[in-house]
Amino acid sequence: MPRTERFIVTRVGAEGSSRRPDELIVEEPLTIQLDGVTVSTTMRTPGNDYELAVGFCFTEGLLVGARVTGVRYCAAGPAVDTEFNVVSVDTGGLAPPPMPRLGVTSSSCGWCGSDQLDELAARLDPLPDTEPIPLDVLRAVPDSVRETQVLFESTGSVHAAAVFDAAGNVSTTREDVGRHNAVDKVIGARHLAAPDAAPDAAPDAARDAGQDARDGPASGLGLFVSGRASIEMVQKAWAGGFTTVLAVSAPTTLAVRAARRAGIMLAGFVRDDSLNVYSQPPRRRTPVA
Amino acid sequence: MPRTERFIVTRVGAEGSSRRPDELIVEEPLTIQLDGVTVSTTMRTPGNDYELAVGFCFTEGLLVGARVTGVRYCAAGPAVDTEFNVVSVDTGGLAPPPMPRLGVTSSSCGWCGSDQLDELAARLDPLPDTEPIPLDVLRAVPDSVRETQVLFESTGSVHAAAVFDAAGNVSTTREDVGRHNAVDKVIGARHLAAPDAAPDAAPDAARDAGQDARDGPASGLGLFVSGRASIEMVQKAWAGGFTTVLAVSAPTTLAVRAARRAGIMLAGFVRDDSLNVYSQPPRRRTPVA
Repeated sequence: MPRTERFIVTRVGAEGSSRRPDELIVEEPLTIQLDGVTVSTTMRTPGNDYELAVGFCFTEGLLVGARVTGVRYCAAGPAVDTEFNVVSVDTGGLAPPPMPRLGVTSSSCGWCGSDQLDELAARLDPLPDTEPIPLDVLRAVPDSVRETQVLFESTGSVHAAAVFDAAGNVSTTREDVGRHNAVDKVIGARHLAAPDAAPDAAPDAARDAGQDARDGPASGLGLFVSGRASIEMVQKAWAGGFTTVLAVSAPTTLAVRAARRAGIMLAGFVRDDSLNVYSQPPRRRTPVA
Repeated sequence: MPRTERFIVTRVGAEGSSRRPDELIVEEPLTIQLDGVTVSTTMRTPGNDYELAVGFCFTEGLLVGARVTGVRYCAAGPAVDTEFNVVSVDTGGLAPPPMPRLGVTSSSCGWCGSDQLDELAARLDPLPDTEPIPLDVLRAVPDSVRETQVLFESTGSVHAAAVFDAAGNVSTTREDVGRHNAVDKVIGARHLAAPDAAPDAAPDAARDAGQDARDGPASGLGLFVSGRASIEMVQKAWAGGFTTVLAVSAPTTLAVRAARRAGIMLAGFVRDDSLNVYSQPPRRRTPVA
């Protein structure tokens, strides 16, 4: 499926207006099924759909105790145009049944941000102590990722996530209308390229994530996200084992709390000549002055 | 609940680094219940929570055939810090039961963007034919809204939605970490301020939306959204009766298709001296050259 599409639009400038073609980013729904049960429908940019489905299931904690044995597009329907809007992730029924989020009536007053942090800390492994990525490397990462953002280059409006290492090398750039989808695609690509992944589950597109993943876990690696960092981004980075998160814009309060709880170095608000460090685990503090 | 919070961060610039306070935007979960049944949990910036809950239920089509008779925070739990994270919207049981989105196994290949457009067209009323808002008015709207974005001013990273009229007057600005939440707050505010709303359901915060709403439906008014326009934004604008949508950045393909289907004028990619018009209903085309 195409990821951009040309529309005729009216460009209005100071010296009048003109009709001209404009490249827009494609948005289509993707339904994700786990062992045949629908777990999510997300609006996404087509492409790397297997990675997105696996990354979503993995980062949401739906694969605990299970291993992905296969990933496939829906093939049951007659309509070609919807065939690629459902992806099934299979674990042979070993994945725990997903919790319904809708329709549950509770007598309590719901949960708060701290509950979420407790839930994450209970579910996710502690991150290893790693050498911090130097700050001058971090400052250069957005420009390096920008060179790999092919959809942004043509449309001017799409989020990106990418992996970078301590030398500032960028790999596994993924783009999507949803920032959370871009992150899921990155983490799904690493998951599918890992040595113990089902051989036939990894599509070609995940190959560029292969070397990283074969080199070991993500600890020591950084996750780049365009735009802002919400708790969802930090949660997914934590699940993916990343020890550094770099957001172009500012994080939310809960994102900072989650990063501090996880021991993730969280930097953001990158400008020409500066950035902010919001979470810096004391045990691996960088000499910055 | 506070909407921003001060954190100590490390600012790293060309001439070294310093520890300094930084104002971050608060992110906390809000669970929305309709007649006692949980219909959504969204990460949001606290504030205008009644508007958010009502706007979500309304724009998602959950209030068909029903009227809001009351809105309240959860009061059942012992914990003060979670008391404000659940809002119940009551219709006396007249709202149709919400459709569960999770766990439904289907033998078909899911839906595609066109299905979504068909569903919206079947559910939402056609928009009336209105005079278009002049393009030079549209170009000035982002700057006018900016002056009312108090949370953006202090944090530099939060979305906004607002109402504007054909003269460029801005009202009902709402800010949130989620763009869809900001839009729901605007539309919920108008819904709560409408003449037939339950008198005790409209909180003080909705009063600034009152004059607009009492003046009649939103046709002829524009909805401003910061950032990009996805189909979700256009869907909510359509549900709210807005005949113009202005996004600071570019829309997705599906957003343009939805706007063209609805007869909404959709403009975006606003720069210093230009903007793009992506959807312009022929019956009310503006002379632009």
